[in-house]
Amino acid sequence: MAHDTRSKQERKADVLARLGSAVVDAWVATAGDGEPYLVPLTLAWLDDRILLATSKTSPTARNLTARGRARIGLGPTRDVVLIDAVLERTIPVTEAPAEGAAYAAQNDWDPRTAGDSYVFLALRPERVQAWREENEIPDRLLMRDGTWLI
Amino acid sequence: MAHDTRSKQERKADVLARLGSAVVDAWVATAGDGEPYLVPLTLAWLDDRILLATSKTSPTARNLTARGRARIGLGPTRDVVLIDAVLERTIPVTEAPAEGAAYAAQNDWDPRTAGDSYVFLALRPERVQAWREENEIPDRLLMRDGTWLI
Repeated sequence: MAHDTRSKQERKADVLARLGSAVVDAWVATAGDGEPYLVPLTLAWLDDRILLATSKTSPTARNLTARGRARIGLGPTRDVVLIDAVLERTIPVTEAPAEGAAYAAQNDWDPRTAGDSYVFLALRPERVQAWREENEIPDRLLMRDGTWLI
Repeated sequence: MAHDTRSKQERKADVLARLGSAVVDAWVATAGDGEPYLVPLTLAWLDDRILLATSKTSPTARNLTARGRARIGLGPTRDVVLIDAVLERTIPVTEAPAEGAAYAAQNDWDPRTAGDSYVFLALRPERVQAWREENEIPDRLLMRDGTWLI
């Protein structure tokens, strides 16, 4: 175990720092009709919501529209953040000035340039876990039912 | 674009080298009853099958047993391998000498030490994609219906 065990407070601070940093690459899992879907996407963080930008016909957008839930992993796999989130709003990128500005500021791409076929998916985190190695498996739960535990 | 565009042949070789290397950390997505599940797991590669080792009561094992499908991502997210795979066999770790030896040789842990509650899940890849950046999005499909295209 190379790392010290972080307190829950430290982990929450680390999670928020990562979500707010430039170019956050995430693995986004959704479920279709019993079928798992998984794809790497960049995200942005605005007003305590995760913003994804995808084509409205992508499996991620279709699964979220139909079922409302995603599970999002930030890596590497030995410095994990896992977020269960629910779809709050779907907004065409051309009608989302605040989301567009926030996403573009945090990423190397502005989804508004993709035009009408793209949407922002605003997800509300409900459950957040963070751990590095075995020593951090206890205390990995940081948010439950949408409320930070610390 | 920092990288040259790899040929499909190069990507297949890279995928096989990664699957066969020591300590392959992967994101494993499965679907429950409309619910996405995602967790980081290490895997091993034996006889063209992906071996996972988990508790038989874990959501990953339960979802795979019920629905038979996983989607597995190897990162980082800008050097991606995505594998759609189907469950071929579930074997108690205590009854799996070949799988146990292969998994232990490739990992820093031997699941056989976990005892009866753990199983190996042997997954057959059906679809494999690999890409780094935008320039590699064409030609990202390397296996379809269980057959390498190159």
